[in-house]
Amino acid sequence: MVYLDHAATTPLRVEVRDAWLGAHESVGNASSVHGAGQNARRLLEDARERLASALGCEPIEVVLTSGGTESVGLAVQGLWRRRAAGQSEIVLPDGEHHATLDTVEWLAANDGAVATAVALTATGRIPLDAFRAAVAREGTALATALVAGNETGTINDAAGLARAAAVEGVPLHLDAVAAFGHTEVDFGAWRADAPAGAGLVAMSVSGHKIGAPTGTGALVVARTAGIAPLLHGGGQQRGIRAGTQDVAGAVALARAAELAVAERHAEAHRQEALRSDVIARIHARLPDVVVLGDPQHHLPGTIHLHLPGAAGESLLFLLDQRGISVSTGSACQAGVAEPSHVVIALGYSAQAAREVLRISMGRDTSSADLDELIDALVEAYPRLVSRR
Amino acid sequence: MVYLDHAATTPLRVEVRDAWLGAHESVGNASSVHGAGQNARRLLEDARERLASALGCEPIEVVLTSGGTESVGLAVQGLWRRRAAGQSEIVLPDGEHHATLDTVEWLAANDGAVATAVALTATGRIPLDAFRAAVAREGTALATALVAGNETGTINDAAGLARAAAVEGVPLHLDAVAAFGHTEVDFGAWRADAPAGAGLVAMSVSGHKIGAPTGTGALVVARTAGIAPLLHGGGQQRGIRAGTQDVAGAVALARAAELAVAERHAEAHRQEALRSDVIARIHARLPDVVVLGDPQHHLPGTIHLHLPGAAGESLLFLLDQRGISVSTGSACQAGVAEPSHVVIALGYSAQAAREVLRISMGRDTSSADLDELIDALVEAYPRLVSRR
Repeated sequence: MVYLDHAATTPLRVEVRDAWLGAHESVGNASSVHGAGQNARRLLEDARERLASALGCEPIEVVLTSGGTESVGLAVQGLWRRRAAGQSEIVLPDGEHHATLDTVEWLAANDGAVATAVALTATGRIPLDAFRAAVAREGTALATALVAGNETGTINDAAGLARAAAVEGVPLHLDAVAAFGHTEVDFGAWRADAPAGAGLVAMSVSGHKIGAPTGTGALVVARTAGIAPLLHGGGQQRGIRAGTQDVAGAVALARAAELAVAERHAEAHRQEALRSDVIARIHARLPDVVVLGDPQHHLPGTIHLHLPGAAGESLLFLLDQRGISVSTGSACQAGVAEPSHVVIALGYSAQAAREVLRISMGRDTSSADLDELIDALVEAYPRLVSRR
Repeated sequence: MVYLDHAATTPLRVEVRDAWLGAHESVGNASSVHGAGQNARRLLEDARERLASALGCEPIEVVLTSGGTESVGLAVQGLWRRRAAGQSEIVLPDGEHHATLDTVEWLAANDGAVATAVALTATGRIPLDAFRAAVAREGTALATALVAGNETGTINDAAGLARAAAVEGVPLHLDAVAAFGHTEVDFGAWRADAPAGAGLVAMSVSGHKIGAPTGTGALVVARTAGIAPLLHGGGQQRGIRAGTQDVAGAVALARAAELAVAERHAEAHRQEALRSDVIARIHARLPDVVVLGDPQHHLPGTIHLHLPGAAGESLLFLLDQRGISVSTGSACQAGVAEPSHVVIALGYSAQAAREVLRISMGRDTSSADLDELIDALVEAYPRLVSRR
């Protein structure tokens, strides 16, 4: 099997699995007072420290969650609930992940929120000037943005977005789910010396995108941020996220984060070389195919293709028959075959937005895997186009 | 080490660990269209079916969550958001878990909810007539109740509570976190033929209380229940709970649930015998100590003690020094040493509510463990009392 859908989910790493198993060698609820509980608490707080170090924040700023969707929901809903009187606008760039999009839509439909859109560039970036103009609007409650697009792989200027939000006094949430482990993610550097409650105040990451178990994740919440909880109960995690803390999950997530950071440069270099090679060979053999996203600012292992005249779904099916797993975009839409709103945000038609494939590499992706992919694409794509 | 705090958390079972590891032998996001994704989907849906069978519900009614607190929060907030116009009351018996209590308090402080209390009996049960009178009040939006108390171990008449809610046309959430695996839990039987949207419509369970990983859990949501989601995104799980589904967590939870159900009668019998023995010996050697909870309707492995004149915390500390882990009550209050609101709900003073210990057994609890506990208690308790 050639698995080239690591952006949807990537295998549990062996080192992470072992860390998870190791954390289960003792028992204890980290909120229990006795020695067993305190031992669990030590494991948990050690994991939180290592995670903080990987994310560029303070340990107390790490709020453990059940994954990216919860982190994004907690950030956007939590900041919204703490908005000042008279604020009703949420800056929402085009092409955000459905976890963000659907949360803002829900707040718009149910709680009076108004989304302020920011159009993307043709390569999928958020233009800084347009973003800044959006956050500067009176009545802006909060802003949210992707660090890197999960479909295009385009990387935004996170530091610039954070600075714009800081200057305008607006709290910003960054969705680093697709970015973390693949490009630089540094909460502290991006937050810089922003005033309390403004600039970068929250940042989401997810475990299963970096080789930790599904069901793990974190929201970094700046010390000074006002974020209302979604879940109420035992007062765990600064009162921001109640519930028995998943010690083994935290230990596993910390291990995966450490490894991702330690290996990032070498792995990015390796994937970038594979990516360039694949793109050159696709250009040579399938000259109609267009590589989407940003030629300069992109995740090293993501290749987003527009294949004119071929439904992405049909291509995916033909590749799958050859044992090659790729995606038409986000797996997070529960199998609904809709044109990608992200591709539309690049300026493409709804028709074209169905003619895309996303190839995403992982640590185990080899050049042989990509040879197989190219052979399969070269065979399948012309068949689909000529059939029209 | 003698671990007698299984109600706080119980060790991961070996069979469950192996199931979790087995689910990681393949990779795939259950929402991906390709074969790898569909394989993940099959594992997930198989787990959901087995879980449904253990809980007495239909597979589609199982909404996987990150644990008990999320399940309770989703149920109470989700039912509240779908209340009819003019409804503002939430029936909240005394002695509920903080996940419920704090959620209702939050809705009261922020969204106009009014709690209708129901006083407990002296043994910690919810009196059916008082509960029915509460749900019958005009303006009742929803009711919530524990199947079994996590501190007292007292078991309520879940079928009777569900029937009362059905008769009065009110949706009921049951918190079965402490009960599941230890006493009968049967969503379908309790829901019976209640009309759509009334009677038992939602029920919470948690993984780490039955030997599954922390961070797993479920909310059973009746097909006909209107529950608004807390998290928005990819439309997973009937739109009630967005987020990449934790396939391995679901497989592990299903395995733990199956084992718990299969072993329940034998294990309950075994623990009940140990419990009776412990209580008889405590009565004989420490005649001032009072066993709280219901003499007839109680969890087989929970022993809740009032030790007049001795702070539970101090006792816990002395026992811990001898390697014995017990609790003063809920571990879910993040180590805050407050008098237990549950004990106060039994009619005790705040002073007395600090003089309690909860002993909770697990599958590996032996009579030797309980011998050690009794010896330690017999030594420590008089020391603390005489020191006053």
